[in-house]
Amino acid sequence: MRKKRVAILGATGTVGQQFIQFLHKHPLFEIACLTASKKSAGKRYSEATKWYPNFLGKGIPEEVGNMTVVDTNLNAIEKANVEIAFSALPADISKETEPEFARAGITIVSKSNVFRLDPHVPLLVPEINPNHLELLKVQKKAKNWRGCIVADPNCTTTGLVLSLKPILDFAGIKRVFVATMQAVSGAGYLGVSPIAINGNVLPYIHGEEEKTQNETLKILGRFEGDKVEPLNIKVSSICNRVNVDYGHIEDVFIETEKPCAPEEVKEVLRKFRGAPQELNLHSAPEHPIVVRDEEDRPQPKLDVNEGKGMSVVVGRVRRDPAFENGVKYTLLVHNTVRGGAGMAVLNAELLARKGLLN
Amino acid sequence: MRKKRVAILGATGTVGQQFIQFLHKHPLFEIACLTASKKSAGKRYSEATKWYPNFLGKGIPEEVGNMTVVDTNLNAIEKANVEIAFSALPADISKETEPEFARAGITIVSKSNVFRLDPHVPLLVPEINPNHLELLKVQKKAKNWRGCIVADPNCTTTGLVLSLKPILDFAGIKRVFVATMQAVSGAGYLGVSPIAINGNVLPYIHGEEEKTQNETLKILGRFEGDKVEPLNIKVSSICNRVNVDYGHIEDVFIETEKPCAPEEVKEVLRKFRGAPQELNLHSAPEHPIVVRDEEDRPQPKLDVNEGKGMSVVVGRVRRDPAFENGVKYTLLVHNTVRGGAGMAVLNAELLARKGLLN
Amino acid sequence: MRKKRVAILGATGTVGQQFIQFLHKHPLFEIACLTASKKSAGKRYSEATKWYPNFLGKGIPEEVGNMTVVDTNLNAIEKANVEIAFSALPADISKETEPEFARAGITIVSKSNVFRLDPHVPLLVPEINPNHLELLKVQKKAKNWRGCIVADPNCTTTGLVLSLKPILDFAGIKRVFVATMQAVSGAGYLGVSPIAINGNVLPYIHGEEEKTQNETLKILGRFEGDKVEPLNIKVSSICNRVNVDYGHIEDVFIETEKPCAPEEVKEVLRKFRGAPQELNLHSAPEHPIVVRDEEDRPQPKLDVNEGKGMSVVVGRVRRDPAFENGVKYTLLVHNTVRGGAGMAVLNAELLARKGLLN
Amino acid sequence: MRKKRVAILGATGTVGQQFIQFLHKHPLFEIACLTASKKSAGKRYSEATKWYPNFLGKGIPEEVGNMTVVDTNLNAIEKANVEIAFSALPADISKETEPEFARAGITIVSKSNVFRLDPHVPLLVPEINPNHLELLKVQKKAKNWRGCIVADPNCTTTGLVLSLKPILDFAGIKRVFVATMQAVSGAGYLGVSPIAINGNVLPYIHGEEEKTQNETLKILGRFEGDKVEPLNIKVSSICNRVNVDYGHIEDVFIETEKPCAPEEVKEVLRKFRGAPQELNLHSAPEHPIVVRDEEDRPQPKLDVNEGKGMSVVVGRVRRDPAFENGVKYTLLVHNTVRGGAGMAVLNAELLARKGLLN
Repeated sequence: MRKKRVAILGATGTVGQQFIQFLHKHPLFEIACLTASKKSAGKRYSEATKWYPNFLGKGIPEEVGNMTVVDTNLNAIEKANVEIAFSALPADISKETEPEFARAGITIVSKSNVFRLDPHVPLLVPEINPNHLELLKVQKKAKNWRGCIVADPNCTTTGLVLSLKPILDFAGIKRVFVATMQAVSGAGYLGVSPIAINGNVLPYIHGEEEKTQNETLKILGRFEGDKVEPLNIKVSSICNRVNVDYGHIEDVFIETEKPCAPEEVKEVLRKFRGAPQELNLHSAPEHPIVVRDEEDRPQPKLDVNEGKGMSVVVGRVRRDPAFENGVKYTLLVHNTVRGGAGMAVLNAELLARKGLLN
Repeated sequence: MRKKRVAILGATGTVGQQFIQFLHKHPLFEIACLTASKKSAGKRYSEATKWYPNFLGKGIPEEVGNMTVVDTNLNAIEKANVEIAFSALPADISKETEPEFARAGITIVSKSNVFRLDPHVPLLVPEINPNHLELLKVQKKAKNWRGCIVADPNCTTTGLVLSLKPILDFAGIKRVFVATMQAVSGAGYLGVSPIAINGNVLPYIHGEEEKTQNETLKILGRFEGDKVEPLNIKVSSICNRVNVDYGHIEDVFIETEKPCAPEEVKEVLRKFRGAPQELNLHSAPEHPIVVRDEEDRPQPKLDVNEGKGMSVVVGRVRRDPAFENGVKYTLLVHNTVRGGAGMAVLNAELLARKGLLN
Repeated sequence: MRKKRVAILGATGTVGQQFIQFLHKHPLFEIACLTASKKSAGKRYSEATKWYPNFLGKGIPEEVGNMTVVDTNLNAIEKANVEIAFSALPADISKETEPEFARAGITIVSKSNVFRLDPHVPLLVPEINPNHLELLKVQKKAKNWRGCIVADPNCTTTGLVLSLKPILDFAGIKRVFVATMQAVSGAGYLGVSPIAINGNVLPYIHGEEEKTQNETLKILGRFEGDKVEPLNIKVSSICNRVNVDYGHIEDVFIETEKPCAPEEVKEVLRKFRGAPQELNLHSAPEHPIVVRDEEDRPQPKLDVNEGKGMSVVVGRVRRDPAFENGVKYTLLVHNTVRGGAGMAVLNAELLARKGLLN
Repeated sequence: MRKKRVAILGATGTVGQQFIQFLHKHPLFEIACLTASKKSAGKRYSEATKWYPNFLGKGIPEEVGNMTVVDTNLNAIEKANVEIAFSALPADISKETEPEFARAGITIVSKSNVFRLDPHVPLLVPEINPNHLELLKVQKKAKNWRGCIVADPNCTTTGLVLSLKPILDFAGIKRVFVATMQAVSGAGYLGVSPIAINGNVLPYIHGEEEKTQNETLKILGRFEGDKVEPLNIKVSSICNRVNVDYGHIEDVFIETEKPCAPEEVKEVLRKFRGAPQELNLHSAPEHPIVVRDEEDRPQPKLDVNEGKGMSVVVGRVRRDPAFENGVKYTLLVHNTVRGGAGMAVLNAELLARKGLLN
């Protein structure tokens, strides 16, 4: 089968670099276009980017390094004849660019937060709400686009909703409290000063709590023919930054509708599978959720790469003594893989398999 | 006024070292006796202890360094003619020793967790429950002791209850969820390997969650003539270790009985005063609770020494969207000062002022 | 005495912020002008700068926060009627600006590295080479300037030369090898990613080795009427970045000309005094060099603030077994105080005392 | 071929755990006996040890976990019918035990430092001095032992000598200065407090400097029929602890006898091979030394696992300006693999291949 030609928008930043890692030698996709700002356009990719070895482990794949970076504009994209664009653009640019590209027929899978709560844009976690892709028809019609935008959720939200979905189906959920300990990579390579974070906890991440609260309700919401009705539960979160490289820890307290024993919850988490597993998608982990029984896991340093970073690791599942029916646990999500470029690529694989590209 | 002669039980460990810091040149107390295990007995203190400069900033006070360490036994204590003993003994030893000393007439202020939930032992936070000291009469009678035991709470609990008390009085509390990020010093100087904690979060601290849940209810409970009736609310906690030297961060979600605006909560927290402030006790901070308005405070690295480590710092007070009536916030408590030797000394100051020594 | 009016050039960056700390309420100087780039000009200082609490401990002094930032140009400086300008400008700007201001009569004390090796510019460590200030006459004449430029050395160099000077005078020096472990603050607040430095050593700092090698020879060189003849010794350095907030550690191996016992070296280091001590300058530490006898000191975490950050701390002084005559030791210098704004201010105090400010 | 039965002495400590990692499923060796102190004897290994997941990545191999630990004594060893014993015993115990076992016919490969400088004991780095194994005949005869002791060098020394050997052969060496930045794992799992090392450099490691200086001369020395004549050069070292998990960095300044261009040095380092490579031993890395050309490598976080931790990584090779003939560079050695159990196993492989195991 011919590989789909893809563009990476904002390819020289750290998220763009991660897209390259996930898309290089991908069985379905072929990197056909790397875009960046005007000042990088015309340069070889290896000259235009500052490749961060700590982020990625390996150097720039040679053939990617030799590609010429183009300016982020429609001409360039169309000249490269791409079908999909993975967007790692900053919010202010994605706001203008993504709709323009979608109008012109490109399918955008976006890491930007600009359109996540747009009622016409599916906010996709492929194990949870693949049926929200039905929104794309509505979107194309409403916006009069030939292409479309599919949004990827916030990293913290992604870990949370994956753990909530099986519990929601099993016992119903009334209320969720979550306190997070998030890795510095979530802020970008130079987003946090070592002086600020060494031996410290930063008890605030701009916009993060709103994202986790709002996105969760949309992702778990019900598709109702022409829109997604958000889930009607309460979510409250407090988000902190800690000095971990990769992997967000989340402490979750849940009030369920029905009684549920911790062993039952562990079982439904372990058995959870979704469309990526059923369709055997290339980037799908065998177990979307890995449950550990040890009292002191998950730990970012030991568990972040579970399922090549695509599995959420849940531990310490136990009854919550402050709810009549409740459970509490700790989860770990790899913020730049399952919560980042890895899931965007998984989303694109789902689109491809469902025949939603063109 | 003649200073009270005091002993430090378990003086060579890190908590013992902290007692020395707080008791050296104290206006009410005079270090008269340093005890340790048999293997240290007979040595000069400066030879018997491995003084950790990072814990304490300063070296051993010279006159303390020259004192001779004695074995932890009643003879030694009585020979030294002490009235109070600050106990930094490990649990298994304090279990035997503290009652023996109390029987013989010594007042024990104990950092051990052995007797914290004993119905006859007051679990004292001097700003909150000084009236629980009435239990001492009950205790002495029930146990037929001439002295007594006063217990100090767990460090995490101490920070939590100080923040809860003004809210409880103002709006009533139904439910509390707390997720903690605790400093490595809480585990002792060599309690955690740097390899385990560097770039990591350890999502478990043995026994900590039970302590925070149970001790909170007792401290906030009502003294009823001959016993303390625990407060009838629900508390659920999840405790984590992070790579911070000093200062525990706690994320708190509270369901209140009555509506309460964040600004009201901040005001009652700021205005909170207790017996130590009213009595102007030596170690009392002017403000037991310091409220900060910045969106990114408290931070351990910036705020841990507020009020010489005796103030709890609260920030990010806001409505909790998941409760009809609720508030959430982040607090910081210095685990080895307000949550450690500092508060034990403040407790002893209260006992002295109330004439409860002898 | 009327205070001298001073400008801080590049006042919104981290070095500029440090100048504010050292110059606020200074007995000789008065902050009269804060400059920054065009985009900050016209704003109140507190709005124009992102003040980093971790760097500085305290907030912006209120009267400084209320000052209006001006563009870095001669008009603004002249309008403010300043005599001295402390320059925290980036190299490319200082290259143009400092000579222009000097020409117009301003005395520049510069943290920039642009003019450090200019044969007409004194590279000043006030305890070591105050006589190099004689160069200023030569400079003014050669360049036809009414003002002048005095350069501050690189932070690593400053610690090194302070320790070398007494040994040079006592025993002569033939060769120096130095390996450094430098704090992240040396790279600026966001100069190093936490992901890059956590649990790591970065074995390279751009330009640092050349600076330590070349600047050392100039500072220790001899003033010969119209120029400084660099010291004729060999210096070789290897510079590393480690995850320390403040304080550079340097391991130094020295071949001396004459035999010198470690005890003698310690004594000459301890007794070392210079012009700032003799003249009792405001920012002068009592002991430019503090020697510790413990086998495991100096340590950045324990010793960096010795002498309010103005003392170099030397430890582990012992014979070097690989030289016939040699000594080796470890030193610690506070890179943003003695190696930064602190010494620049001390240099200005020396200029003021010597009557060299117009 | 039948596998050789081996014992691990001191198997429950962290070095013992590493031996298990390297010996489990080894093609030549079979773990036949695990010894520990009396208090562990009789327990299943999985109960007797506290297995540190961070050290080793993986859990205890099941069949090893089920083995019964025995007391460290000759009876137990003989009953298990082992030919080789890998010793991870503490110095005071190895001093008594290793000679006793050697007398009884066991070949000891020891990580202890007790016998490293014993003139009859080869201090083996298999790429460098395999001919020192000739000492074993002398040893057996002199001590009247049926077995023998082969010593493994200190971890820091191992990295250093591997880099020195090709330069010694190529250009001769007169003098070496080395400053180290050593990982915390070198002190054992709980050997350093996080409070002591976070944001700090500890400028002292007990005994380390003497080891690097003395062991280097012996390893590079010449075997002369019945003894090893230490190499006649000068070595001076300063050793520091930094907050890195694994991997010691060493800054090396070398005075050579002959001129040598950096490019030549890089070439001889890259081409260096020894007996393990020639004999294609199981644990031998293809390249004992990997040379990197980037200006900012090696870094522990990026390079420590080069050659599965068995390659020394050298970077920043350049002329040393302080010597007439000299070179300087930075090296990285994995302290618990090439500098630990990994090299001990490689040494045993060499013994086996040379027919030196009885």
